[in-house]
Amino acid sequence: MNLVTKFKIATSVNEVYEAFVDPEKIGNFWFSSSSERWESGKKIQLTYDEYNARLEITVVEAEPNKKIAFKWGADDEERTITITLHELENSETIIEVNEEGFADNDPDLMAKLLDNKEGWVFMLTCLKGYLEFGVTKLRGGLVKD
Amino acid sequence: MNLVTKFKIATSVNEVYEAFVDPEKIGNFWFSSSSERWESGKKIQLTYDEYNARLEITVVEAEPNKKIAFKWGADDEERTITITLHELENSETIIEVNEEGFADNDPDLMAKLLDNKEGWVFMLTCLKGYLEFGVTKLRGGLVKD
Repeated sequence: MNLVTKFKIATSVNEVYEAFVDPEKIGNFWFSSSSERWESGKKIQLTYDEYNARLEITVVEAEPNKKIAFKWGADDEERTITITLHELENSETIIEVNEEGFADNDPDLMAKLLDNKEGWVFMLTCLKGYLEFGVTKLRGGLVKD
Repeated sequence: MNLVTKFKIATSVNEVYEAFVDPEKIGNFWFSSSSERWESGKKIQLTYDEYNARLEITVVEAEPNKKIAFKWGADDEERTITITLHELENSETIIEVNEEGFADNDPDLMAKLLDNKEGWVFMLTCLKGYLEFGVTKLRGGLVKD
């Protein structure tokens, strides 16, 4: 099983790409901190203070303005996330997030899919708020309990 | 099966309530148009131009600043949505959206849950953007295809 979420952002692919890979920018819409610039092969430490989350990801591929692929999750539950950017003629960007590797036979599959779908839609709406309107305080608004 | 989505909005319960029931306000974060003020027992026509959607809902209960319950969907697939508002001490609002009535034996259950989870998270983030930051152009950013 995989999860696909797609948004349109009215900024260039470069601005969208940099928002993820630049540790100075990610805190405006997603994780609170990112240990260094995302580049192919690097392991990055991320925190999300509002949800007491701390995790490490491995960047599999970072192709400027086009694609970011990374892995997260425990060894027996590792999933790959591929973020693809597509520039439209008017310099807007279509961003697609595809998370793959959910086990079909996991009894908690539905809960995990819903939880992560929630996370992707929230992050992408926060990204749109940040890049189009300079709003950086949407993150943290989702209540998890 | 039901779907629960919960957000914190840094405005009063009255502002959150009015955003839904006042046809002049809903277009800032959710449907493009709403035929009249939401009140118990009324049928309301809604459109969402960006997604070519047109539907009718029946408001089951509208208790100012506390709760809005409505039904949508075809007769054999009718679902009830209950929006509950809870005011925190600092005048912030916890809003919970609970959609009930998904048939457990529907072969498309997972796709329908994911689709509607996507919609609720998107709408609630847009609501937060509108009420806290006056941003009214996040809606339409989600790409459905």
